[in-house]
Amino acid sequence: MSGYQVDDATPDEIEAERATYAPIADATRRLADLSIRTRVSPEDAASAREHLEAAIALLDKDADAEPYGVRYSSSGVTRAWGNAVVGVRNPIAPPLTLIGDEDGVFAEFELSAAYEGPPNLVHGGVSAMILDQLLGEAAAAAGKPGMTGTLTVRYRRATPLGALRGEARVDRVDGIKTYAVGHIADAEGVCVEAEGVFILPRWARADRTAPKKFE
Amino acid sequence: MSGYQVDDATPDEIEAERATYAPIADATRRLADLSIRTRVSPEDAASAREHLEAAIALLDKDADAEPYGVRYSSSGVTRAWGNAVVGVRNPIAPPLTLIGDEDGVFAEFELSAAYEGPPNLVHGGVSAMILDQLLGEAAAAAGKPGMTGTLTVRYRRATPLGALRGEARVDRVDGIKTYAVGHIADAEGVCVEAEGVFILPRWARADRTAPKKFE
Repeated sequence: MSGYQVDDATPDEIEAERATYAPIADATRRLADLSIRTRVSPEDAASAREHLEAAIALLDKDADAEPYGVRYSSSGVTRAWGNAVVGVRNPIAPPLTLIGDEDGVFAEFELSAAYEGPPNLVHGGVSAMILDQLLGEAAAAAGKPGMTGTLTVRYRRATPLGALRGEARVDRVDGIKTYAVGHIADAEGVCVEAEGVFILPRWARADRTAPKKFE
Repeated sequence: MSGYQVDDATPDEIEAERATYAPIADATRRLADLSIRTRVSPEDAASAREHLEAAIALLDKDADAEPYGVRYSSSGVTRAWGNAVVGVRNPIAPPLTLIGDEDGVFAEFELSAAYEGPPNLVHGGVSAMILDQLLGEAAAAAGKPGMTGTLTVRYRRATPLGALRGEARVDRVDGIKTYAVGHIADAEGVCVEAEGVFILPRWARADRTAPKKFE
């Protein structure tokens, strides 16, 4: 495993990267939603597909062979822009924008038709995915970043698609293990709760213990 | 909640729907991957974006206001085509194609850069999401469909992006609660294990107890 990557991107370069590629991810998120809901004619669908193939050909002219990874820059900005939950360049990510500090993190987000499991409801696995990220971010924000060791998710009631809020905080720390708790709620209250154990990888124990900063 | 939907789609109509819209989802999956990995010029990115906006305009000419749901047809085919893990019309879904019977289910699948968490590794939350679906499908295949009550995921070792295999089976049944277990493995063996409790919703207890059939 290559571990984490430090690049020499300046703040201007980072903003240029965001301005160039984040709109591609945004458009692809709208396509993901429409791919499910559209009922246009085969002719219109075929025309849309030609546009998608043209976009693919353009974007594939020069593409990194590797996944995005996590990129640190000397200016202090960390980019997890390919991350499946928070990545601004990842159309699979809603993406969540987290706000918080060592006392906890939260995020408000919307889940579209692309996150459905049972009819009109958020897929239970999607809730688990988001909670894993929230709990891990809470651990990182408290200066205890780690990989998930165990994640337990309790579904209190059905989670509707639409506007949701997630929260997480560190409950306790025991050596290299950090215990985090959190939940996802809608306007009526908590839908899903989780607790997780996060373990600092051996290779990261020397230099990755500073509290994570949010941009 | 509207519950599950029975439509009158014939086998031919179902295949026509697949032929028209599944390629849109496939192309959008490739776009999700390229959105993360591309490093083309701002000019090429802007041109790609124009194609994406054109595709969006075409697909949005006529779109269902509702998420896809789960559609049953009188011909016996069930379409969970918007599902976040198995939906053939959902670009967020890898999608998994499950094979199995009442003794268990399995799926072989590939996870691209869009499913990344730590560098080069599958996001822990993505593994949880996939396991939730696998365990739920194992319960359904055993004639005990249900909503997830509790899901516990244990991360044995890092899960690499790329070719993976998932398996799940019912461990035991206790009234309306079905206990399922499963894992995700790479070529070296098990990476992540899970156990889940699935509970048949009250509204579904009368008529949804036949073992699920796989196409």
